[in-house]
Amino acid sequence: MPAGRGAGAKYEQLAWQLREQIRAGTWRVGDRLPSLRQKAEQSGFSLMTVLSAYQLLESQGWIVSRPQSGYFVAPARESARETLPRQRLQPLQEVDINAFIFDLLQAGDAPDCVALGSAFPDASLFPRQQLARALARVARQMLPTGTRANLPPGCEPLRRSIAQRYAARGMDVSPDEIVITSGALEALNLSLQSLTAPGDWVVVESPAFYGALQAIERHRLKAVAIATHPRDGMDLDALEQALCQYPIKACWLMTNFHNPLGGTMPDAGKQRLLALLAEHRVALIEDDVYGELYFGAGPPLPAKAWDREGRVLHCGSFSKTLATGFRIGWVAAGRQAQAIQRLQLMSTLSTSAPMQLALADYLAGHHYDKHLHTLRRTLEQRKHAFYRAIQRVFPPSARVHYAEGGYFLWIELPEQICTTRLYWRALEEGITIAPGRMFATDERYRHCFRLNASLSWNSRNDAAIRRLAELIGEQLA
Amino acid sequence: MPAGRGAGAKYEQLAWQLREQIRAGTWRVGDRLPSLRQKAEQSGFSLMTVLSAYQLLESQGWIVSRPQSGYFVAPARESARETLPRQRLQPLQEVDINAFIFDLLQAGDAPDCVALGSAFPDASLFPRQQLARALARVARQMLPTGTRANLPPGCEPLRRSIAQRYAARGMDVSPDEIVITSGALEALNLSLQSLTAPGDWVVVESPAFYGALQAIERHRLKAVAIATHPRDGMDLDALEQALCQYPIKACWLMTNFHNPLGGTMPDAGKQRLLALLAEHRVALIEDDVYGELYFGAGPPLPAKAWDREGRVLHCGSFSKTLATGFRIGWVAAGRQAQAIQRLQLMSTLSTSAPMQLALADYLAGHHYDKHLHTLRRTLEQRKHAFYRAIQRVFPPSARVHYAEGGYFLWIELPEQICTTRLYWRALEEGITIAPGRMFATDERYRHCFRLNASLSWNSRNDAAIRRLAELIGEQLA
Repeated sequence: MPAGRGAGAKYEQLAWQLREQIRAGTWRVGDRLPSLRQKAEQSGFSLMTVLSAYQLLESQGWIVSRPQSGYFVAPARESARETLPRQRLQPLQEVDINAFIFDLLQAGDAPDCVALGSAFPDASLFPRQQLARALARVARQMLPTGTRANLPPGCEPLRRSIAQRYAARGMDVSPDEIVITSGALEALNLSLQSLTAPGDWVVVESPAFYGALQAIERHRLKAVAIATHPRDGMDLDALEQALCQYPIKACWLMTNFHNPLGGTMPDAGKQRLLALLAEHRVALIEDDVYGELYFGAGPPLPAKAWDREGRVLHCGSFSKTLATGFRIGWVAAGRQAQAIQRLQLMSTLSTSAPMQLALADYLAGHHYDKHLHTLRRTLEQRKHAFYRAIQRVFPPSARVHYAEGGYFLWIELPEQICTTRLYWRALEEGITIAPGRMFATDERYRHCFRLNASLSWNSRNDAAIRRLAELIGEQLA
Repeated sequence: MPAGRGAGAKYEQLAWQLREQIRAGTWRVGDRLPSLRQKAEQSGFSLMTVLSAYQLLESQGWIVSRPQSGYFVAPARESARETLPRQRLQPLQEVDINAFIFDLLQAGDAPDCVALGSAFPDASLFPRQQLARALARVARQMLPTGTRANLPPGCEPLRRSIAQRYAARGMDVSPDEIVITSGALEALNLSLQSLTAPGDWVVVESPAFYGALQAIERHRLKAVAIATHPRDGMDLDALEQALCQYPIKACWLMTNFHNPLGGTMPDAGKQRLLALLAEHRVALIEDDVYGELYFGAGPPLPAKAWDREGRVLHCGSFSKTLATGFRIGWVAAGRQAQAIQRLQLMSTLSTSAPMQLALADYLAGHHYDKHLHTLRRTLEQRKHAFYRAIQRVFPPSARVHYAEGGYFLWIELPEQICTTRLYWRALEEGITIAPGRMFATDERYRHCFRLNASLSWNSRNDAAIRRLAELIGEQLA
């Protein structure tokens, strides 16, 4: 189960409480909050605690302070405004997305561009010094026998650390069902391969992480794309229909802080999802690489938390939270663990031993949770800064989907805008975005794009956002 | 072109010259070599140089010293004795080898066994201190921008170092056609994938590295297995026949120090191979992970040296020569370089950035060639020690194929011996071997096995060889 709401420092508990009240409508836009002194008296917290809570909420954009007047609720966020995909269930006999994606990924590779299209978080957020020390320690201790011990399923202490993190959330995942992989991408690919043969049907989201679409093309599968909501995730009615109509072998979902949308499936949805999969005896590949980046008081649980039959292959990674370049991910693969080890032994043999050992060493030092805590706060502040800037300068017809976790913003522009065109135009000026065309096999998201909001807010990025707004304006005119 | 014969220290040049004379029959078994003084006078080298040369040849088992009598040519090696596979060309509609291999690899995973079945060289032969220092240096310098620069095709300085090594051998390979991979295994898999679709025909050797057979099974290909000779490699007449009879898309060969046989295709064979492939417009996946481990004066060239059309995908690795656990290999992919980058971007994204950087750092230090020099000498001595021990205690009907490079011995036992049975029996006593069944899809090599001769020669390994001899004796009885 998730850590209780309100875990963390006292001021964070108080900030969470106030944020929930704003969300619930207890305080509405423009309302004046109780003064610091009033709040301290009401709550029993110290004046300093109340001040810290208010400052945190202000940094996150929930409230604003006005000199001599106090704290007021800031203008509402956009995430409540909804846009449902028009077609809820879309069969794809053939998936062909690779050439396009590859062009985009290559084009955005210039080191000096403003990489708002990047999928990676700003690497300066990672604890490089601590990782370097772990790497140096491991280097000194490199044993000649190290190789064999790091073959699939991978380094035992690392698998144990990961299992302990599951246990801390009330999930019973044995180190034996965990396979260490070359990032979550290899985990997802091996999972898909272990469950399907060419020509089989699988379920994906629409829009979807392009890695899913690429894997489906690469493995010559057929897919049913199910409408996915920017707030709550996949349309489970449409999923049920697909499971009845097609011989589905596996579903591929991002249940928490979806890429590119940002949405998280509520617990009730995850339970229904598991029930549907059990009924139709279908496996779930759960891509959960952003789950640790929650802004609320506790992490959203993965669907695997309700899995009693080893049906869920839960894929995680350190690439988005700790060490992008290490290429260390994993899959808690349930009954597929053995099959996945075999596939890995045949394709890449194993991930690099020093990288596995360095992460095991780092995790043993108990710095990870502290790092994650800081990372979440920073990402929340940065994301909100981008959000506010976009709200300020983008045309009012733009809808910005803000999720309480992860570092992506999903932006819907008026239908006449083509974000692929916007992409090429922006690239000329050294700015990248991730156009909607990357996340589907057709043009249905051509007016949308994903924006990486993990970068520090500065004048260069501010100028980039303004320039994007101008380029959108040119297309609108 | 290879470094001129006789490169290296003076005593090594002299030793090489004498070895060639023994090979050519100038000196026969039992012949007394010129005395140290005579040889010094004849050759113009100093007495010390001649002594060093004789001692080197003795350590390698070419000559023996008899007190008060001088140096004599030791009993001849076995590699001249030939065994040709009976069937020169064998079509395989379906390849199914994985389950068996996996059982074997898992069973031999115990850390305290005598791993004569291992595919890895003894890791204590690697320069761990220097690699650790490189890793520590890289850790200190880890830049936040490191990630993007290490995406496919991989770290530029590392690709440049590899290209320079090709250049030193007279081969013109651009850094741009090199893709860094997770060991040679990923290079080979991506190469095969880039050239074929399920159902296509490919050529493999018989016997073959099991990774090739696994990849063929995994990608649902059909294969023609071509008889391969323990000394000279693939039967090119049979290959020509296969190219005429089947719509072959790609050939997968180990041209140098073949695994498991040890043989090397002569330069003339490589030229004919390239001509055949050009005529039939077929690509070559050249697995050359042992090429650096030559015992002669210069390295054998890969077939790629004669490639003028970008038809050869030359796969190399540091796993067998420098750093097993790093999982860094590459492919010089000719015209397939772009396709392979795309496939990698979809499957594992990239290899780990610190590992790539650490190897680039190590190679920049110019220690690699010195390390290789020592490694070759040590492997030659160890391999010969195993060879002699086996000759001493195995039944006379056993044929031991000794190649002038790599660290495998390929041993043919009488037909009634089943080496799979031998494998399980030996495993009970803490000894592993690589039975012939691993290297083909049928039972044709059931009486053969591969032995890892990279381990240091000591009483424990001596006892293991004696025990193997006894177990073979039991089966013969």
